Amino acid sequence: MTHSLTDIEIARAADKKPIQEIGARLGIPDEHLLPFGHDKAKVSAEFIASLADRPKGHLVLVTAINPTPAGEGKTTTTVGLGDGLNAIGKSAAICIREASLGPCFGMKGGAAGGGYAQVVPMEDMNLHFTGDFHAITAAHNLLAAMIDNHIYWGNAQEIDIRRITFRRVMDINDRALRQIVCNLGGVANGFPREGGFDITVASEVMAILCLATDMADLERRLGDIIVGYRRDRSPVTCRDLKADGAMAVLLQQAMQPNLVQTLENNPAFVHGGPFANIAHGCNSVVATTTALKLADYVVTEAGFGADLGAEKFMDIKCRKAGLAPSAVVIVATVRALKMNGGVGKDGLGEENVTAVKKGCANLGRHIENLKQFGVPAVVAINHFVTDTDAEIEAIRDYVRGQGTEAILCRHWAEGSKGTEALATKVVQIVEQGAAQFAPLYPDDMPLFEKIECIAKRIYRADEVLADVKVRKQLRDWEAQGYGHLPICMAKTQYSFTTDPNKRGAPVGHSLPVREVRLSAGAGFVVVICGEIMTMPGLPKTPSAEAIHISAQGFIEGLF
Amino acid sequence: MTHSLTDIEIARAADKKPIQEIGARLGIPDEHLLPFGHDKAKVSAEFIASLADRPKGHLVLVTAINPTPAGEGKTTTTVGLGDGLNAIGKSAAICIREASLGPCFGMKGGAAGGGYAQVVPMEDMNLHFTGDFHAITAAHNLLAAMIDNHIYWGNAQEIDIRRITFRRVMDINDRALRQIVCNLGGVANGFPREGGFDITVASEVMAILCLATDMADLERRLGDIIVGYRRDRSPVTCRDLKADGAMAVLLQQAMQPNLVQTLENNPAFVHGGPFANIAHGCNSVVATTTALKLADYVVTEAGFGADLGAEKFMDIKCRKAGLAPSAVVIVATVRALKMNGGVGKDGLGEENVTAVKKGCANLGRHIENLKQFGVPAVVAINHFVTDTDAEIEAIRDYVRGQGTEAILCRHWAEGSKGTEALATKVVQIVEQGAAQFAPLYPDDMPLFEKIECIAKRIYRADEVLADVKVRKQLRDWEAQGYGHLPICMAKTQYSFTTDPNKRGAPVGHSLPVREVRLSAGAGFVVVICGEIMTMPGLPKTPSAEAIHISAQGFIEGLF
Repeated sequence: MTHSLTDIEIARAADKKPIQEIGARLGIPDEHLLPFGHDKAKVSAEFIASLADRPKGHLVLVTAINPTPAGEGKTTTTVGLGDGLNAIGKSAAICIREASLGPCFGMKGGAAGGGYAQVVPMEDMNLHFTGDFHAITAAHNLLAAMIDNHIYWGNAQEIDIRRITFRRVMDINDRALRQIVCNLGGVANGFPREGGFDITVASEVMAILCLATDMADLERRLGDIIVGYRRDRSPVTCRDLKADGAMAVLLQQAMQPNLVQTLENNPAFVHGGPFANIAHGCNSVVATTTALKLADYVVTEAGFGADLGAEKFMDIKCRKAGLAPSAVVIVATVRALKMNGGVGKDGLGEENVTAVKKGCANLGRHIENLKQFGVPAVVAINHFVTDTDAEIEAIRDYVRGQGTEAILCRHWAEGSKGTEALATKVVQIVEQGAAQFAPLYPDDMPLFEKIECIAKRIYRADEVLADVKVRKQLRDWEAQGYGHLPICMAKTQYSFTTDPNKRGAPVGHSLPVREVRLSAGAGFVVVICGEIMTMPGLPKTPSAEAIHISAQGFIEGLF
Repeated sequence: MTHSLTDIEIARAADKKPIQEIGARLGIPDEHLLPFGHDKAKVSAEFIASLADRPKGHLVLVTAINPTPAGEGKTTTTVGLGDGLNAIGKSAAICIREASLGPCFGMKGGAAGGGYAQVVPMEDMNLHFTGDFHAITAAHNLLAAMIDNHIYWGNAQEIDIRRITFRRVMDINDRALRQIVCNLGGVANGFPREGGFDITVASEVMAILCLATDMADLERRLGDIIVGYRRDRSPVTCRDLKADGAMAVLLQQAMQPNLVQTLENNPAFVHGGPFANIAHGCNSVVATTTALKLADYVVTEAGFGADLGAEKFMDIKCRKAGLAPSAVVIVATVRALKMNGGVGKDGLGEENVTAVKKGCANLGRHIENLKQFGVPAVVAINHFVTDTDAEIEAIRDYVRGQGTEAILCRHWAEGSKGTEALATKVVQIVEQGAAQFAPLYPDDMPLFEKIECIAKRIYRADEVLADVKVRKQLRDWEAQGYGHLPICMAKTQYSFTTDPNKRGAPVGHSLPVREVRLSAGAGFVVVICGEIMTMPGLPKTPSAEAIHISAQGFIEGLF
C-alpha cells in the first residue's frame, strides 16, 4: 500500500498528454485553447460564451473536518474522486484553486494533491502558472497608485487620507510591508499617510475575479470596490477614480480559466485562489460553470474545514452564481480525528480507537451542519499507512450512526483504483437526486441576524458579541443598500470557536466580532472574529533558502 | 504616402502566422517553442544550449540622435530594417526590449514600432506579455523580504539597517512608494526603517537577466547582488542570505527569450527591458546571441540617444557578451533635428532648412562618436509626412560631409518597401567587413578615469566634477575587486550635457557626478549625474482612466 516515490518524483514521472488532447475530450477546439507551454492552456472567453445554453452537469463539493497539523488531504481527495469518476466511466472534471507564491517560498511547500492523486505540471502550478496572480497584483496596485495620484493632483473626490481602506498587495510573505508610512520625501512624493500591503490572495480583486460571471460583471464589480471614505463618511469607489476599465484590461486574460490535467490525464480546471478567511476560499465561478457545461460531474473543493469553507461555498459562491451542489464529500483522516480527540502530534503513530471515537464528534457536527443546506453528504476516509482496521471501523460505525456512510479511499497510494468505491457512492447519491440545495439564510435577513444565524447554526455558539460600533456599521451599510449581501466569516479554521485550541465539537462558547469590513465589489460583508493575518511573514529558515535548480535542471526544494 | 489607419488598427488587421511557423523559419522545432497563446512563444533553454557551436550572424545596432518630444522612431526603424533585410532576401531577425506596464497606464501609451513597421501582438506586448517582468518583480521582492526577515530573526549577518541599499520594485508608476518607512506596527512586524520602491525596469535583477549568458551565470550574478552593508562597511550579498537559488527558480522561465513576429511575419525576439539610465538599456544577451545563431542578420536597438544607449551597448553589453556589431544605423528625423536646431514644438510643421542644418550638429557628433568604437555608421532619415525635400537634402548633404550616407526611409508608411535602400546599404557595409569593434576604454582603467573617458570623448565635457566622497567610494570598490567593471552612466537623455535643455552639440560644459552605485550582480558601476527618477509618478489624467474594453471586445486607450 505504500510507494517509495515522493510527490514530486511521481509528478515528474507523469505521462502528460498535450493539453489540446485534454481539451478535445471536453470538446474544446484547439483555437479556443490558449496554450501556456505544452501542458497548460486557458479556455477562451469566446468559447465559454458559446456554451450559454448548454445544460449543466452535477456539482460535487469536497470539504473536510476542521484542519489539524496531521493533514486531511482535501485537494488530494478532490483529485482522487475526479479520477475515480472517470475510471468508472463518467465524464468528470475537477476544479481547484491556484497556489500563492508566498507560502511556497515560506513554510509550506507547494502542492496540487499528493501521491498518485495530483494535478500536473506541479512546478508551474507552484510558480507563476499562467500569470493570473501577477495580473491581479498589477490590477490591484494600479488602483492603489491611482488613489494616491488622485490625492496628489488635487483630491477632487475629497478622499479622507485617514480613511483609505484599500491597501496594496504583493504575492510574497513580507511582514515588513504589513504596516508602512508612504508618500514620504516631500512635496513631489505626495501626502504622507499610513498604509500597508496584504498578500495577493487577500485582495478584493482576487475575490471579484473568482465571483464574476463574465468581463462585464467583472468590470462592474471592480467599479464597486470601496477604496476609502470622505470626511462625511460617504464611500469613494474605484469607479469614482476611473480605474475600473484599466483594471479589467489587466485582468482580461486572467479571467479565462486554466486547464491542466491529473496524473491520470483527466481534465482539471485550476483557477483563482481567494483567501478562505477574509474572502470565500473557492476557485472561480467561471471555471466551475465552464466545467459544468463540459462534463457530467464536476468535483470541487472549498478552503479550510466545512464550518468555514463549505458554508461560504454554499452561502456566497452557490447563492451568487446560481449553483446547486448535488452531493458533498467530507474528508476525514484517522490521524486528524485522533487530534480532534485530544491526541498530540507525537501520539499519532499509535493505535488509539478511543481518541478516534472522541474526535468523531467534530466530523458528526459537520455532517449535521451540511444537512442544513439540503445536500446529501458522504464521508471519505483518506487512508494513511499507519491507520489500523479498528480505527477505520470506529469511524465507519460512527458515521453510520449519523445516517450516512464513510468510505475508505486509497487514492494517494493507488490513484483512481483507490476511489472507485467513493465515486460509485457519489454517483448513486447524485442519481437519486435527493439534493435540495438552499443557502442557510435569506438575502433579506438583516446583516447582524445573518451573523447570528451562522454562529448559532454552524458554530453552535450561544451568542454573538459585538460592540455598538460594529452594530451601527452594519446598520449604516444596510441603509446604504448593502443589506442584501451575504456574510464572509473570518475566524480560525482550527475550531468551531474562535479559539484554535478548542478541537472536537465544543459548546457553550460565544462568537466575539472584532471588526466588520465591506467588500462591495466582491459582494460580501467580512466579519472578523479574532486575529486574522492578511500578510504572512517568512519563518526563521524560509524554504526559499533551499529552493534551487539542480545540476540536472530540476527545481528542488519547492515541494 | 500617408495611410489613414492608426497603429493599433494596423496591428489588429495583421495577418499573423502561427508562432510555430515563425519558429520553423529559424529552424526551431515545435517542441522547443513554449507557446503563450498562438502568437507568442519562448525558445527553450535546451534548444539554445544546442546552438553553442554554430557560427554567429551579423549584428546591426540601431541608435539615434538625442531624443526630443518630436520623436525619432528607433524601434520603428529597427523593425523596418529587419523587414527590409528580409525583403531583399536576407535571413534577418530583430531583437528589441519588452515594454513596462508602468508607463502604459501613465503617460506614454504602449507601442512596439509604428505604422507598417510594428511587432505584433501589440496588446499583449504592452500588457503582461509572457510574464517576464512579473517574474523579475517576484524574484526581486523575494530577496527584499528575505533581507527584512533575516534581520527580524536575529540578523546573523549583522546588516546595518541604515545601510540597506536594495529596495523593492513594482511595475507600476507609483510615487507614493518612492520613499516609505516599513516594518511599522510593533515587535511582530520587525525593525522600522526607511525603504522604498523603484519601477521594475530599474531592478538590478532586470539588468542581470539581460546580461546573463545562461542559468548558471544568472544564479551567480544574483548571488553577487549587494543588498546592503554592515557597520564596518563590508558588503552583504544576496548569496549571504541564500536567496540566489530561489530567485533563479523564479526566473527560469523568464530567462528564455520570447519570439513574436513583425507585421510582415518576420521573426522578432522581444526580451528584457532594463532602464537606459541606471542600467544599460538593451534587450537580453540571451535573445541577441540566440538570434545571431539563427539568422544571418540581427537588428537590435539601444535605449535613448547614441551618447547613452550606443555607448552602453558597446561598453557594457558587447564587451561583456563578446559581441561585435558590424554596422550602426543612426536614426534621425527632420523634426527632431529641427528641435535640436532650436525650433520649439509649435514650429515643427513649417519648412526650416536653417534649423535642420543647425540641428545636424547633434547628428554629426554621434557619427563622430561611433567611429571611436570602430563600427561603420549609416544614417536613417525616418520620414514624416511634413518633411520637405529641401530639409531632407540638407541632412543628406551634411552627412555626406561626415563621410557617410543618410538614407530616406519610409517604413512607417510602406513597411519593408520603405527600407530596402537602407537594408541594401547595411548589407554592403557588413559585406565590406570594415568593422573593427573595440570598446571605448579597457577593463583595467581606474574607475574614475573611465568616467572621464566617457565624459570627454562622448559627451565632450571639459571635466568631471566629483567630490572626495565619490572618488573615495570608487577607490574602495577598486580595492574590493570591482575596479574592472564598466561604467553605466545615468544622465539626461535629452542632451550631451546634464542639462536637458542644451540640445545640439554643446561644448564647454562639465559633468557633475552626484552619486555612484555598485551593481555588483549586473556587473557595472552606476554613475549618477543629475536627478534620476527610478520610480515615475502618474500624470494628472493617467491614460489608465481611458483604458477599457470596448463593446466589441477590443482593448481601447492603451496605445
